[in-house]
Amino acid sequence: MAVPRSALVLSRALALQRAASSARSLSGSVRNSPALLYRTHGEPVQVVKLETLELPALGAESVLVKMFAAPINPSDINMIQGTYAILPDLPAVGGNEGVGQVVEVGSNVKTVKVGDWVIPKDAGLGTWRTEAVLNAVDLVTLPCDISVLSAATLGVNPCTALRMLSDFEHLKPGDTVIQNAANSGVGTAVIQIAAAKGLHTINVVRDRPDLVQLTDRLKAMGATHVIKEETLRRPEMKELFKLCPRPKLALNGVGGKSATELLRHLQSEGTMVTYGGMAKQPVTVPVSALIFKDVKVRGFWVTQWKRDHKHNEEALRSMLDELCSLIRTGKLSPPSCTEVSIEDFHKALDNAMKPYISTKQVLVM
Amino acid sequence: MAVPRSALVLSRALALQRAASSARSLSGSVRNSPALLYRTHGEPVQVVKLETLELPALGAESVLVKMFAAPINPSDINMIQGTYAILPDLPAVGGNEGVGQVVEVGSNVKTVKVGDWVIPKDAGLGTWRTEAVLNAVDLVTLPCDISVLSAATLGVNPCTALRMLSDFEHLKPGDTVIQNAANSGVGTAVIQIAAAKGLHTINVVRDRPDLVQLTDRLKAMGATHVIKEETLRRPEMKELFKLCPRPKLALNGVGGKSATELLRHLQSEGTMVTYGGMAKQPVTVPVSALIFKDVKVRGFWVTQWKRDHKHNEEALRSMLDELCSLIRTGKLSPPSCTEVSIEDFHKALDNAMKPYISTKQVLVM
Repeated sequence: MAVPRSALVLSRALALQRAASSARSLSGSVRNSPALLYRTHGEPVQVVKLETLELPALGAESVLVKMFAAPINPSDINMIQGTYAILPDLPAVGGNEGVGQVVEVGSNVKTVKVGDWVIPKDAGLGTWRTEAVLNAVDLVTLPCDISVLSAATLGVNPCTALRMLSDFEHLKPGDTVIQNAANSGVGTAVIQIAAAKGLHTINVVRDRPDLVQLTDRLKAMGATHVIKEETLRRPEMKELFKLCPRPKLALNGVGGKSATELLRHLQSEGTMVTYGGMAKQPVTVPVSALIFKDVKVRGFWVTQWKRDHKHNEEALRSMLDELCSLIRTGKLSPPSCTEVSIEDFHKALDNAMKPYISTKQVLVM
Repeated sequence: MAVPRSALVLSRALALQRAASSARSLSGSVRNSPALLYRTHGEPVQVVKLETLELPALGAESVLVKMFAAPINPSDINMIQGTYAILPDLPAVGGNEGVGQVVEVGSNVKTVKVGDWVIPKDAGLGTWRTEAVLNAVDLVTLPCDISVLSAATLGVNPCTALRMLSDFEHLKPGDTVIQNAANSGVGTAVIQIAAAKGLHTINVVRDRPDLVQLTDRLKAMGATHVIKEETLRRPEMKELFKLCPRPKLALNGVGGKSATELLRHLQSEGTMVTYGGMAKQPVTVPVSALIFKDVKVRGFWVTQWKRDHKHNEEALRSMLDELCSLIRTGKLSPPSCTEVSIEDFHKALDNAMKPYISTKQVLVM
């Protein structure tokens, strides 16, 4: 069902397309694109619908992109639920990352060319659709010698992992990083990037039936130690710190008790960076850790980083180059993914919201 | 009662004196000094006793100091209770700050001369005594044109206040600082130093019978706004932020709910610095404040700062000069003090531990 044009007037995501359509495409033909649209905030399986959008004509500054694949991230879900820090005007196309190929460019476009692989520079583009007319300035190119799944999942989690390992503590080979949610998209990227940098990682996961297999999988990625949440409170931590130094950096995707326990094992003057709050509980910091251990409690949001570096193309380019080089040398693999056709989005959304699902749902177009 | 010498073998504070006594004083006479000593950790009124210590002979690197005055700070109490982060070997003389005058110097001493006013460079010297033989390198001179009370209370609270206002956020005139425990030693120093720097301060105090008088007193010191803890949760905060910008810096001496409320009013990318935990509850930080507001949660301990700058005499000198200059121009007054003779130490310790006591107990020798 095509969205009536009147309904789209307030849509920021679609307004982007409008702005891009100051000239008709060369062919002049009208193209339609299936897209996963939501008109109200709510539970994703209830509010997200597969609809057919009419593509606007190609403007001088815009490009037509054929999407290949786009993952379902926790922040996409929260955005649809209306609980995320930034929300698009409605109706909006879901999805904030993904990779596509440029198939047509406007007359003034210099930064990308037909055939280029592109990913969004910022959140909010709406990637869950088969084709889109987008402003060229909102896209950044990727080399096409990495896998589609690597490219589709590069812009959020590996970027978050790399920045957190780079921007808070000066880490050198042999130093230790501790993290919870070690099996998450960010967590597995941290394991691999840290291993490539010669860092020890202590990886905390929740107890589960397949813990042995999970441990093996994370160790195969380069995890130095994999422990259960409960172990954080046990004397065996002392034994562990005979094998590697206490961590300078703790990465927290959970909050609550788990975060407090990470803090407890930090070196003096170490930093804990929070990037997620899966437990939906705040971070509780003992006063003595702040005063007498001088621990630093910080947060990181990759979307803000990208916005802060909007006018520093070089910073984004150099981060993506570093990640692609790790991918090419086999040091950074995409998360284990379940590819789902865009028509089966209901199943994908369902799975994406289940706890303990270890594979990322990726919509393929 | 003199302390048997055998009992002193393990005392770090007194061992300092021993180390200083490699040569006999010129006069060769034995001198005694009353001191407030504790032999076990426990409740101060029970374990602190007034005893007479034999002063060691003056070594080549040491000086004889006649103490003028020494305050009772919360950290002194915690040190006696055995709950502080650093504890002296026992028996130990109480007190970590205070001012005295040099009355005799060892043959190799170059940094201080007879007549100089001196304060300890670091915690742990044991200032609650009438005279002490100390290593010259453990002391720093103060100009003698400030009051004894200003000098006796300069080394901990005003130093803490100045460092917290200087080292965490780049504040310029017109910026705002919010703090709880505004009536504490650190709090009143913050009010005055901030006012001298042209900063707005929002000062949070607990509700109390004499709130109007307290508010007047803090405003007379330069406080821009004085509010009750409850007000932090009320809509009138919005009105307040029409009068001054949201704070870049929050100073927390309380912890618990009070700290969380301070955080809530911080600007994006602002910093909260914790220097005390009067409420004996941890600091609870919403995950969203860390990720989406990028607030920074830090701690400060002036003792650690002094130790970190042990080999940078210039940093300590320049901090003390800045504070003395504020004192001389009438911009920084000592806290309101109750002077108590060292013989009446029981009363002083008792008062120092009462809640809502607005005056600092200072032992005079």
